Amino acid sequence: MPKEKLSIVKIGGNIIEDDASLKSFLKLFSVLEGKKILVHGGGKRATSIASKLGIESKMINGRRITDAETLEVITMVYGGLVNKNIVAQLQALHIDAIGLTGADANSIYSEKRPVKDVDYGFVGDVKKVNHLSVEKLIQSGFTPVFCAITHDGQGQLLNTNADTITSQVAIGMSKFYETAIYYCFELNGVLKDINDKDSVIKHINLVSYSNLLKEGIIADGMLPKLENCFEALKNGVQTINMGNTSMLTKENDNFTRITL
Amino acid sequence: MPKEKLSIVKIGGNIIEDDASLKSFLKLFSVLEGKKILVHGGGKRATSIASKLGIESKMINGRRITDAETLEVITMVYGGLVNKNIVAQLQALHIDAIGLTGADANSIYSEKRPVKDVDYGFVGDVKKVNHLSVEKLIQSGFTPVFCAITHDGQGQLLNTNADTITSQVAIGMSKFYETAIYYCFELNGVLKDINDKDSVIKHINLVSYSNLLKEGIIADGMLPKLENCFEALKNGVQTINMGNTSMLTKENDNFTRITL
Repeated sequence: MPKEKLSIVKIGGNIIEDDASLKSFLKLFSVLEGKKILVHGGGKRATSIASKLGIESKMINGRRITDAETLEVITMVYGGLVNKNIVAQLQALHIDAIGLTGADANSIYSEKRPVKDVDYGFVGDVKKVNHLSVEKLIQSGFTPVFCAITHDGQGQLLNTNADTITSQVAIGMSKFYETAIYYCFELNGVLKDINDKDSVIKHINLVSYSNLLKEGIIADGMLPKLENCFEALKNGVQTINMGNTSMLTKENDNFTRITL
Repeated sequence: MPKEKLSIVKIGGNIIEDDASLKSFLKLFSVLEGKKILVHGGGKRATSIASKLGIESKMINGRRITDAETLEVITMVYGGLVNKNIVAQLQALHIDAIGLTGADANSIYSEKRPVKDVDYGFVGDVKKVNHLSVEKLIQSGFTPVFCAITHDGQGQLLNTNADTITSQVAIGMSKFYETAIYYCFELNGVLKDINDKDSVIKHINLVSYSNLLKEGIIADGMLPKLENCFEALKNGVQTINMGNTSMLTKENDNFTRITL
């Protein structure tokens, strides 16, 4: 019997920070067919609230350090303000949403990143998605909405990359479902020419990926993103889609579809 | 067939604000037998964060007014910081907790309090507890942890009294369970003499309550609390217990038990 479909949709800061963008995205998400999960990051809201509270954002090599105070702000902003407002808005759209950190329902267990050259502070690397717990929620008719926080099982919350949460949850749920990831971002997809927003590469697989690498078309920020994608595809995820939010509709096919 | 037991435990600001008190309470809660639900308020943490963010706490007749900015702080502090830390700590104690506002799983629907003499702002009066949704979570093996926030079903979160959430959730769940409420507070129970902390009235029912009223022993702040209790008891709740957190153990029987 073919598995039922499950969509895991990730939205970034650019959507969350703008009320109108968030509202129009949530409408698209609410009419997306089949079972689904939403994952959101936090964006600049945490930085601005931290700065108002007099907490300095510490960066090393361009990466944010999550000290105890910063973790509190992240827990307030991602886990409270952003997550609960998304849940309330989805309820108004008749989606029975339930907002989660990885601590809730013990859904995502992570380990504090070991200190090597840099001490990232309270940052967690995902070790295990409790797919049985998430499945119980989905089977009960709920739509999980994850923020970018996990826990270590010892009472410690940990700041965790939202892209990683997305791919790990998708991998975990592949045991039950045919899973598709939708990474919604500000571009229309993976671009052939970064200066031409319409130069979307519509399909990438392992063969074309290695050619794109050789030609130098995929580089910089897109490289780790695509490496993560192939990692997820090799671990059970069926399809990964990258593009702007309108790819959730059937009208737009101008986005990047990634398969093995 | 007798109904299964369900305990609904409410803790106030005095426990939440002190890390050691919270930790020792959560230990007691974790070993409490049978199915259970936790409800927490927010306490002074919200006030101190609001003031750091430059948001003035507006009071009218001693009651806090929840304007849009204050609601944001409440959502951050109650729904994020306090709720998620309690959930993570319960997970460490092997309780499979799941943190909720009334928007999550559409669990508690409320209406914005109508403006009469005072405009309380974004404050909600509970209209309906979705006992079926809460039951799905409990049946899945989760322990719901509610913060004092509900929603109006139109996308609006609303600040809601934690005592009311407790009694309304207990009333709703009485359809499935024999429910007992535990109101944990700083006193040992309802006191005969407010100056003698050991003068606990061990049992109050409707008859003894009317005598206590006549004698003037119950007055002031305790009056509305007890009125709410009898309201809950008349609507299906079996027992209400008031006292300090040690009443959750079998060793302490020095607290107030209220029945019809």
